[in-house]
Amino acid sequence: MKNILLIGAGRSASCLIKYLLDHSTAENWNVTVADVSLELVQQKTNNHPNSRAIAIDINDEMQREQEITRADLVISMLPAFMHMSVATDCVRLKKHLATASYVSKEMAALNDEAKAAGIILMNEIGLDPGVDHASAMKIIDEIHEKGGELTLFKSYCGGLVAPESDTNPWGYKFSWNPRNVILAGQGTAQYIENGKYKYIPYNRLFTQTDMIEMDGNRKYEAYANRDSLSYRHFYNIENIPTMLRGTLRMPGYCKAWNVFVKLGLTDDTYKIEASDTLTYRELMEAFLPQGKQTVKEKLIAFMGAEMDAETLSRIEWLDLFGDRKIRMENASPAQILQDLLEEKWKLEENDKDLIVMQHQFEYMLNGELKKINSSLVVKGEDQTYTAMAKTVGLPLAITAKLILQGKIKARGVTIPTIKEIYEPLLQELETYGVQFIEKHS
Amino acid sequence: MKNILLIGAGRSASCLIKYLLDHSTAENWNVTVADVSLELVQQKTNNHPNSRAIAIDINDEMQREQEITRADLVISMLPAFMHMSVATDCVRLKKHLATASYVSKEMAALNDEAKAAGIILMNEIGLDPGVDHASAMKIIDEIHEKGGELTLFKSYCGGLVAPESDTNPWGYKFSWNPRNVILAGQGTAQYIENGKYKYIPYNRLFTQTDMIEMDGNRKYEAYANRDSLSYRHFYNIENIPTMLRGTLRMPGYCKAWNVFVKLGLTDDTYKIEASDTLTYRELMEAFLPQGKQTVKEKLIAFMGAEMDAETLSRIEWLDLFGDRKIRMENASPAQILQDLLEEKWKLEENDKDLIVMQHQFEYMLNGELKKINSSLVVKGEDQTYTAMAKTVGLPLAITAKLILQGKIKARGVTIPTIKEIYEPLLQELETYGVQFIEKHS
Repeated sequence: MKNILLIGAGRSASCLIKYLLDHSTAENWNVTVADVSLELVQQKTNNHPNSRAIAIDINDEMQREQEITRADLVISMLPAFMHMSVATDCVRLKKHLATASYVSKEMAALNDEAKAAGIILMNEIGLDPGVDHASAMKIIDEIHEKGGELTLFKSYCGGLVAPESDTNPWGYKFSWNPRNVILAGQGTAQYIENGKYKYIPYNRLFTQTDMIEMDGNRKYEAYANRDSLSYRHFYNIENIPTMLRGTLRMPGYCKAWNVFVKLGLTDDTYKIEASDTLTYRELMEAFLPQGKQTVKEKLIAFMGAEMDAETLSRIEWLDLFGDRKIRMENASPAQILQDLLEEKWKLEENDKDLIVMQHQFEYMLNGELKKINSSLVVKGEDQTYTAMAKTVGLPLAITAKLILQGKIKARGVTIPTIKEIYEPLLQELETYGVQFIEKHS
Repeated sequence: MKNILLIGAGRSASCLIKYLLDHSTAENWNVTVADVSLELVQQKTNNHPNSRAIAIDINDEMQREQEITRADLVISMLPAFMHMSVATDCVRLKKHLATASYVSKEMAALNDEAKAAGIILMNEIGLDPGVDHASAMKIIDEIHEKGGELTLFKSYCGGLVAPESDTNPWGYKFSWNPRNVILAGQGTAQYIENGKYKYIPYNRLFTQTDMIEMDGNRKYEAYANRDSLSYRHFYNIENIPTMLRGTLRMPGYCKAWNVFVKLGLTDDTYKIEASDTLTYRELMEAFLPQGKQTVKEKLIAFMGAEMDAETLSRIEWLDLFGDRKIRMENASPAQILQDLLEEKWKLEENDKDLIVMQHQFEYMLNGELKKINSSLVVKGEDQTYTAMAKTVGLPLAITAKLILQGKIKARGVTIPTIKEIYEPLLQELETYGVQFIEKHS
């Protein structure tokens, strides 16, 4: 028997737990699922004979060590900043670890020790980062193998809502951490275009968007991610002249979100005094120049040419000109906005979310310009088995299986840019409907 | 004999040192001036018989303790973040301290200990903060004493350049820390207007300006400072409906500076790779959307209605469309901009700088609305005895004298909002030409 310890049983873990339990008999696994909430774990493991449900306090060193000692492999679904105590224990106790988070500096620093301990610290093995690395690297390696030279790589991803559940004018509902959506893009986006570095500061990030087509003729809007440059190194395309990573939204979303950016409503660096005494209209007013017009009229004047009827209707739909009271006291503008959006953009019980990803490649082969578009569309089943949970959880689960089967030889801090991981991973993902469609031209 | 220890002999200390030495015989002072650079100290003390010039390493605990032990009063002109080791020593060794910096949390925490030690930790006793507190508080107290109720207080200050030295289209030269000018306003400006909080995020701070008139008919432009709200507490006007503090620039400056903000050139949070391989035109290009036009044409299109001929001429005057190479490698956009501006906006040897300050008050007295405008204009003598050095240094020097003469009874952490300080301070400042002109209406 092999023992798997999964820490963290929140929304994104549902497909992961299902996979582990479904394969537990054939693979001879005992699966321990641990979370602060025992109830949540019991609900997700549902008395499966190969499961063990426990409550865990991740700061209890004794319990943590005891549980990791029992395990052959640990999967951490904790928030990224909490991985390190688990990772350090894994190295010391010589246990494999898998997470869906970005490699932090602290994690990277464990590389040599992890190699010496003969274990893998598998990171960035969810959707984005995760499936994006695997699927991009497969094509990049293929192009390189046949002697092609990459001249362009653009990669877009979005966690959206399926057309049949798209019931609000923003085309958006939360399928993951709302806070990340509110604060998305703060800083300066950096990418490279025709050999020249390009920078887009936050104040105009949502006004400089690209349009992407996918999934039949469906159009998506893309804004640039903060960091596109560091990926050149991981993907072995250091000298590529054009490289951009972006986030997808439904058309119109970015123009409307830009209203919040320009007003200052996404700022999380200070608190609004006694915010619970204000209505949302008064909040809007606090960010608008003085004047005798209504708040709506002032907003229209304030946005000038950047305002149109559709954008205005999106703002109105959120009741931002109404008498609704703010519920949070002494909260930042970003927190106040999040509280409202969590209600307005809630994924309802029978709603289906949607994951869309597209990689665009251009390369020169024998003096000819070639193009590849590789697209992924995954629809969720319901509020529990979301496309997000599927595309984050399955890569973790499948890779955990490959590690336990001894099929992955890599040790130390690893991300899925290597063939021995991405090849079997992408193959098995296809059987779950997570399949990229390639168009060559 | 009383011993004064002055730590820090940089540009802002010249008038301070002159005052201390000029008064040393009459007041029976020995003045020790300490700086990292002995040469700088010797140049400024110029072998004055009551002076002692020393080099100091502020991190050398032994030397620091030895020098503070000798002193009756310490003046710290160190950068704000370096005050604390001096302040802690002063409390332990029971020596008075004066600084021109804002009261930090750490400084505030020393209040009880300083009172127990019987010493004053005098802070915010330069120009802004300093003279602004003293001059505003004088009028606020007068209004309160005659039973008036303040309804509006706006306070503006700018460190600019005298009309006869105003030789560039920006109307600006550096008379103090350039870095603070580049990063000015980042965050969100907060103030109150007619009883309602107002917020202006950085992305439009320089587009929402007021116009102020002073010094004959000279006009100045004002943008809001980050924090106007906390001053209500210090000035004992907690319930004032309108309160704003702002920074003054010459008309047109803000509109042109907004180009840098919108482009993203004031960002100090990331480095531009190999920035020393770029020209300033290429830097501009990196922040502008792709296109076949010249950088200048693209900038005009990019700014749209926000660009006019004067604004464009200010940008052009900085050689931002030219082939000039960037000198700094892997520098942030803000650092690159600062390096250029330090050269372009240098205060030349015979240039005179200019300090302008204006307080606007409105109050109700016996059912009548009254107004007071109180304005200060100070012109520098040259590059050494600048108006900035005068208005920062004299309040420190005069207050040090008052403390040593036993005329200030306050102990603990103090700022010049109390009568026993502001009254004699403002009186003596007038004899140096630092005089507010009041207009009542």
